[in-house]
Amino acid sequence: MADNIVHLVLARLPDAPEGVRGISLFLVPKFLVNDDGSLGARNDVRCVSIEHKLGIHASPTAVLAYGDSEGAIAYLIGQPNRGLEYMFIMMNEARFMVGLQGIGIAERAYQQALNYAKERIQGKDLSDPRGSSVTIIHHPDVRRMLMTMKAITEASRAVAYLIAAAIDHAHAAVDKGQRAEASAFVDFMIPIHKGWATESAIEVANLAIQVHGGVGFIEETGVAQHLRDARILTIYEGTTGIQANDLVGRKTARDGGAAAKALAKQMKATLSDLPAEKGNDVSTLRAQLTEAIEAFEQCVDWIVRTYPTDAKAVHAGAVSFLKLSALVCGGWQMSRAATVAQRKLAAREGDPEFLRAKLGTARFYGDHLLSQVSGLRHAVLHGAHGVMALTEEQF
Amino acid sequence: MADNIVHLVLARLPDAPEGVRGISLFLVPKFLVNDDGSLGARNDVRCVSIEHKLGIHASPTAVLAYGDSEGAIAYLIGQPNRGLEYMFIMMNEARFMVGLQGIGIAERAYQQALNYAKERIQGKDLSDPRGSSVTIIHHPDVRRMLMTMKAITEASRAVAYLIAAAIDHAHAAVDKGQRAEASAFVDFMIPIHKGWATESAIEVANLAIQVHGGVGFIEETGVAQHLRDARILTIYEGTTGIQANDLVGRKTARDGGAAAKALAKQMKATLSDLPAEKGNDVSTLRAQLTEAIEAFEQCVDWIVRTYPTDAKAVHAGAVSFLKLSALVCGGWQMSRAATVAQRKLAAREGDPEFLRAKLGTARFYGDHLLSQVSGLRHAVLHGAHGVMALTEEQF
Repeated sequence: MADNIVHLVLARLPDAPEGVRGISLFLVPKFLVNDDGSLGARNDVRCVSIEHKLGIHASPTAVLAYGDSEGAIAYLIGQPNRGLEYMFIMMNEARFMVGLQGIGIAERAYQQALNYAKERIQGKDLSDPRGSSVTIIHHPDVRRMLMTMKAITEASRAVAYLIAAAIDHAHAAVDKGQRAEASAFVDFMIPIHKGWATESAIEVANLAIQVHGGVGFIEETGVAQHLRDARILTIYEGTTGIQANDLVGRKTARDGGAAAKALAKQMKATLSDLPAEKGNDVSTLRAQLTEAIEAFEQCVDWIVRTYPTDAKAVHAGAVSFLKLSALVCGGWQMSRAATVAQRKLAAREGDPEFLRAKLGTARFYGDHLLSQVSGLRHAVLHGAHGVMALTEEQF
Repeated sequence: MADNIVHLVLARLPDAPEGVRGISLFLVPKFLVNDDGSLGARNDVRCVSIEHKLGIHASPTAVLAYGDSEGAIAYLIGQPNRGLEYMFIMMNEARFMVGLQGIGIAERAYQQALNYAKERIQGKDLSDPRGSSVTIIHHPDVRRMLMTMKAITEASRAVAYLIAAAIDHAHAAVDKGQRAEASAFVDFMIPIHKGWATESAIEVANLAIQVHGGVGFIEETGVAQHLRDARILTIYEGTTGIQANDLVGRKTARDGGAAAKALAKQMKATLSDLPAEKGNDVSTLRAQLTEAIEAFEQCVDWIVRTYPTDAKAVHAGAVSFLKLSALVCGGWQMSRAATVAQRKLAAREGDPEFLRAKLGTARFYGDHLLSQVSGLRHAVLHGAHGVMALTEEQF
């Protein structure tokens, strides 16, 4: 059979109920298919324009016209009027996958910036101002950018893998209770992962350009493309605002914070595994994570308490809460990694350079990323007044 | 006289001293000029390629070849070997202007997003879920984005105007002491303004796309261009890292924190003008600004103390300190505005809607922007360890 193109289309059957409950899912092929499987007549569906987008140019976005002439033939998928329900099967999967797309772009942008920083010679080392010029990875602020990129990417990837494992458990665990527990965890985590990994992709791609300096702005270098491509991720399959509204509404307020509190309990269990000795990377992170989990719980309590009487106030802080939750979850995973690294180093197992890098990155994560939690908590708990203060005309 | 094109070129004269002290400034015209002022022969300077850039397409960036054939004729500007010094006259002016460029793009991006948010109908008002669909400016998270854009743009513009006034005082004040004071203020503020207003332009342009959702990613809408154009601003005329290094080194450590402390003193004087009554927008901002100024002073003391023995640790936190300083200065100006607005409202002077918007925006600034100061202080004071932890191979 020759190549055909099929479109998935949401539309209404005649006499369908009003609103979203009347939407059905259809398949519309470019060519009709004969009984023997060969391609038949051209269907009445045509591309009338291709959009010029900021990025993802390998994925054309088209305006399609259906039935402008003799009428297009469409095939109903599944049952009538269940189109939106079917779409959300795709959407939930897609939200997880778009988060992964963010981590992929972030990793690529980090690698490209790292390679450049190791090659590009500019300026003197601060500790040797009369010496020869050095590669820019010697400069503390370039390191700060690279460490930010590395720490965010590692932490968001660890969180994504945790969710991936829970998706498997939710489907395949033998114990029914375990399946339900894993499923509740996945539902709570998907908006956090989607929102954070995609916002982070933009931040990391932006930093990759910054590490390159002027040549980063030249398309030939290829690094600007990461920012252009990443820019759609916080928009498609539900914007960050939509993820955050889902998180505070359906995922936190609706179950009285049960899933959120189960998560906090899991994180505290990890905390109690962390060595309590003082003055090293892990103990510093431990103190920060303890505070951050408290901030998370405070916000959850406030959301559950406030939602029934003032949903707008909760939604005003929804993205701040999403970011806070994500930073805490990332810190939790960085702590797990640091604990394992410390144990292996003590036992002289594994690659010591890799393990020491884990400890250093976890330390950076605590001091530069977890440290943002207190400001975000303030924005969640006290920020609604300012968000809602102006009338439409006062803007 | 017909149009000519001239290039400014930094180059070395024969027998110039080595290094930057041997650089002279030249003017290279496209056409030589005859004695009567008419255009003469073509000079040996040619454009060999035009770069493809992410943005600012109205300003072509070219690769120029000088003297490939018979040799190009150049005219020395000023005295030999003082080229870099001359360039910095342009550069200091340019840093201020590039910051203003950032504020201009941010304002345009805000206006475009605001117009869209007032027109685009999508979803129900949270407080009326069975009512008709509403414009998206009704949704709290869209408001959060618009308020962030508005608050940052207003605050950074106020800081820029303060510097502009000080530039005038530094040139034209009758009193010599006043001129010196204004000059020290300008020198301290320029890197803060350049770094903050340009980083903010990227943040605001990014939010403008987000407010638009999917259509923001389509170039036809025009809003993506603001992000593409803004992206160069944190790079040219000195990257944010260069501004921050200038701020902690030449502008803070070198004078033992004198200019920074003079600024803190000015800010505290404004604080003492703020009404102390409790529970309103201004008093909330007052408490936040008091804390933020303390954080600023703490960082200044640490920088002055640490720089002589561990400049790398200071530079590791330089961008965090720049951002902290900028947020505090912005809060200072928002407080001034709020104080005036409150006084005028009480006296029934001016446009009450405009004045109430000032108060609401100042409140938002405190809860969503000044609240970031505590995390940044942590990054300045404790973040160097993580920044410098990894060896080059461990990245």
